Amino acid sequence: MKIDIIGRGNVGTHLFNAFSENADVVSVSSRDLKDLRKDSDIYLISVSDNAIEDIVAKISSLVPDSSIIAHTSGSTSIDILKPFGNQVGVFYPLQTFSKDVPLDYSEIPFFLEASNSESLATLKSVAKKVSDYVYEADSDKRRNLHIASVFACNFVNHLWTLSADFLSSNGLDFDMLRPLIKETTAKALHIEPQHAQTGPASRHDSKTISAHLESLNGNPKLEKLYRMLSDSIEEHMISK
Amino acid sequence: MKIDIIGRGNVGTHLFNAFSENADVVSVSSRDLKDLRKDSDIYLISVSDNAIEDIVAKISSLVPDSSIIAHTSGSTSIDILKPFGNQVGVFYPLQTFSKDVPLDYSEIPFFLEASNSESLATLKSVAKKVSDYVYEADSDKRRNLHIASVFACNFVNHLWTLSADFLSSNGLDFDMLRPLIKETTAKALHIEPQHAQTGPASRHDSKTISAHLESLNGNPKLEKLYRMLSDSIEEHMISK
Repeated sequence: MKIDIIGRGNVGTHLFNAFSENADVVSVSSRDLKDLRKDSDIYLISVSDNAIEDIVAKISSLVPDSSIIAHTSGSTSIDILKPFGNQVGVFYPLQTFSKDVPLDYSEIPFFLEASNSESLATLKSVAKKVSDYVYEADSDKRRNLHIASVFACNFVNHLWTLSADFLSSNGLDFDMLRPLIKETTAKALHIEPQHAQTGPASRHDSKTISAHLESLNGNPKLEKLYRMLSDSIEEHMISK
Repeated sequence: MKIDIIGRGNVGTHLFNAFSENADVVSVSSRDLKDLRKDSDIYLISVSDNAIEDIVAKISSLVPDSSIIAHTSGSTSIDILKPFGNQVGVFYPLQTFSKDVPLDYSEIPFFLEASNSESLATLKSVAKKVSDYVYEADSDKRRNLHIASVFACNFVNHLWTLSADFLSSNGLDFDMLRPLIKETTAKALHIEPQHAQTGPASRHDSKTISAHLESLNGNPKLEKLYRMLSDSIEEHMISK
């Protein structure tokens, strides 16, 4: 099976590594398509969502009619690929990718969709070479998974960034929070997050919340986020 | 060294376990003080912030004049203890505690403060029996650490809860996010969160952000949080 990955970003780079480890004939092309192989069985388009349509329009006349063209985006419908005649699909890995951080690919869930059952079977067999967790997901399901992952990963990481910035602006070190962050994660994965909630808002400790808001007075963004997330926790505890 | 812990909540229960493992004579009292030892060297008040003052007022006539009275709160000043004549202090463990989840106490940072250097030395020697990370911190520093930990732990866990609820309301399973959450945490601890940011907002992918906001249309709370946190990430990327 010859696989060509188009895009050398975070996802493309990792997919290339994953397939290389698993002995497929794999190549990676940059977005200008200069190094595109003309004889691959599968083309995985791994570029930013805005650029997918343009790439497909360009490659559809260059690649074999029998090849499958798939994108790797969580939030883009399969329909964007359909005008181009080939068999098409989606090949979405649910993970956070940074080029320089190695990953255990076997644990990454892959969510697949295809325009026909034959293409779906081909994409599945390819995904299963890499991962033990291969699922089907239509565009709705995939978009909901992506939204959930934005909250669970991107927004969580940003809260850690804000926390690190706040500490540093007060002459304190983010390292102090490492055991707390490790334990927060371990607990949420072990007993489910809704059972792991602690902190002032979860015990309706208005005195501490007021003291914190007063301290954050000079920082409108943190104050607003603190208020909103505390209200949300309190509502959540009441509605349980 | 005889230590009496007042309060059987999450923190009190774990401090009792920590000292028990480390061979101090330790006892734990409930908030009604019926089982309070009258001969301890240190009294650690581990009750909700609102209840500290009341507990100190009640015990100050019951305990030895030579004993140290300390509270374990991140956001309460040492001053609340000073009217009561004894040597006083603060003994703040920076960790998230749930009664039934075991912890490695040696990794927990303890932040200490005391009304005199002798009491500080005593509290330090006690903390060092439990943990390798013992620091001094005045009330300001401690409050800032507590605020940072609310963002890094309590708010993060709540985002995971919201994410789990969103998945479940769409017939999907939080288990799908486990590898993502593990990796998000590993990466933030490995390369610092500001270098680990990924996701639509970090790459100014307005198309995906709009699609997500449209999907969240029926859920005003998630929509508002999505907008606020995405804006905050975008600002942060620009200001870097």
